[in-house]
Amino acid sequence: MSGHLPLAVSLGDPAGVGPELIAAAWAMRKKEGLTSFFVVEGKGLLSAAATSRGLKVPLAHISHPAEALAEFDHALPVLGSVDFDWHPGQPTHDSAQLALASLIWATRLARTGEAGGLVTAPVAKARLAEIGFSQPGQTEFVADACGIAHEDAVMMLAGPSLCTVPLTIHEALADVPRLLTSELIMRRARVVAASLARDFGIERPRLAVCGLNPHAGEEGRFGDEEARIIAPAIAALQAEGLDVTGPHSADTLFAPRERAGYDVALCMYHDQALIPIKALDFDKGVNVTLGLPIVRTSPDHGTAFAIAGKNRADPGATIAAIRMAGECAARRAKG
Amino acid sequence: MSGHLPLAVSLGDPAGVGPELIAAAWAMRKKEGLTSFFVVEGKGLLSAAATSRGLKVPLAHISHPAEALAEFDHALPVLGSVDFDWHPGQPTHDSAQLALASLIWATRLARTGEAGGLVTAPVAKARLAEIGFSQPGQTEFVADACGIAHEDAVMMLAGPSLCTVPLTIHEALADVPRLLTSELIMRRARVVAASLARDFGIERPRLAVCGLNPHAGEEGRFGDEEARIIAPAIAALQAEGLDVTGPHSADTLFAPRERAGYDVALCMYHDQALIPIKALDFDKGVNVTLGLPIVRTSPDHGTAFAIAGKNRADPGATIAAIRMAGECAARRAKG
Repeated sequence: MSGHLPLAVSLGDPAGVGPELIAAAWAMRKKEGLTSFFVVEGKGLLSAAATSRGLKVPLAHISHPAEALAEFDHALPVLGSVDFDWHPGQPTHDSAQLALASLIWATRLARTGEAGGLVTAPVAKARLAEIGFSQPGQTEFVADACGIAHEDAVMMLAGPSLCTVPLTIHEALADVPRLLTSELIMRRARVVAASLARDFGIERPRLAVCGLNPHAGEEGRFGDEEARIIAPAIAALQAEGLDVTGPHSADTLFAPRERAGYDVALCMYHDQALIPIKALDFDKGVNVTLGLPIVRTSPDHGTAFAIAGKNRADPGATIAAIRMAGECAARRAKG
Repeated sequence: MSGHLPLAVSLGDPAGVGPELIAAAWAMRKKEGLTSFFVVEGKGLLSAAATSRGLKVPLAHISHPAEALAEFDHALPVLGSVDFDWHPGQPTHDSAQLALASLIWATRLARTGEAGGLVTAPVAKARLAEIGFSQPGQTEFVADACGIAHEDAVMMLAGPSLCTVPLTIHEALADVPRLLTSELIMRRARVVAASLARDFGIERPRLAVCGLNPHAGEEGRFGDEEARIIAPAIAALQAEGLDVTGPHSADTLFAPRERAGYDVALCMYHDQALIPIKALDFDKGVNVTLGLPIVRTSPDHGTAFAIAGKNRADPGATIAAIRMAGECAARRAKG
């Protein structure tokens, strides 16, 4: 019955916009129809963060996730006892420590089934690295915690206008051509197809695969990766029965008419996937990790230290991340 | 007084969507407030193309561009005597020959000052290559005809939401890192800044330069082109007094709030520039060539043979290209 379990929301770096956006999401829980959730840590600062946005957010201190269900309607449930002062915009080793503690605990609760899913607020990777966190990001941490190979934990950016998956992520552009393999495309495409069916209720997901080169290489005029790597992967996936098309010209694939023709675009590199979603769905984009035994989403933005505490950050992506996690968890509970 | 000269519109491949969209633009000339223009060649087919869209477009056969001014109000002026049957969707060597003849003549009329500017309808590059046209595209042809080095004829994509300039264009992505030089960025940025001032009336244009790598390399974490090539070019351009910023993260630069901060984004490769404009401004994008002695624009789409003659192609980009050419020509005439 994990559909009736509350979601665990990690605090993110307390000096970033995470806490105020979590509080803002709770304040809009009824209007937005959000499922129950609780925050892991944040005592002493979530009220202050809410006040900075002109919101009254009563906190309910809970000692077990299940208690969140009864409290959520009238208060924001907070698990954890660390008392921490709020200094928006001023990240420290201590704030990174708290962010990490919250992430570890929230992930564990999702793993053990005490929480219905995990929503992670933004952390500062450079600050986490300073305190010995060796992962490139939260996605890889969560994958490891779940015992899933990084290749099979697939980042999808989901917005109201489109969903994209970058097949390579934080890599120099010059390295992308040699990092792309048919095997990588196929492995990730299979995860995407299975996850869209299981978590998003799309029985036969339509995957559109981008080319790497301009106009998908124009039949080999510029670059041969389409013929050598991408098209064979598409053919093999089709032979497995998946609904996969491409390689498509990336420049036209995100135009309105084209977007109606697929459920997710598989992109060869970071900016090919991130440019269209941020151009079209800024403030509403959700970063969801496919292929995990748990549901995990995150707002698709960073800590935004520069505007933390200034009532300027938009809660849209946090609300969308919580809603999507709730919907995915409900589908898993039913299915 | 080139502001009062009519624009020369090349026919494009007659089997593509060019003719019907030119006719549609003329039919909307009053509503859209379009300046006078004439088509170079198209006798025998422009009426049929108009009829396929349910439009009545009388043609006025003219023997000199200046005659277009008196005719434009009540008929679409057509220069040229080639009689050609209309077979939408069926490009041939003959249709390519007619497209090329129209392009050559229209360009010459803009060069000699008999036309106020040049608007080119879409051609099929592969068909043109078959009849011996050795240029990569119309932009390079026009640059050569004007005696301008290809490096100084700069393609800008302009839409209602944003303007972008790809600094490299039809190149394999793997080649882009080695093609980028500080010199190239500076040379093109100077053309862009001068042209936005002269043709677009932006006194002090704001140029935002993208990074090449994800997050503009995150201070060298992925790729060094930002530090090695892009940042030095920006610093040198700033030292020349230009308003240039960057290198910016390309994924966030096209989000709504960011777009308000610059007049044009300089992009490192084709899809970085084309993805956002086609996602946001599809059917309204204009391809304008900066740095030429003549005004030259083009709708930012291809021949679309598959939908030619089916009343499905959107005339928005053609109308926008004609309007922009008229506005640029008027500014040059005044300035």
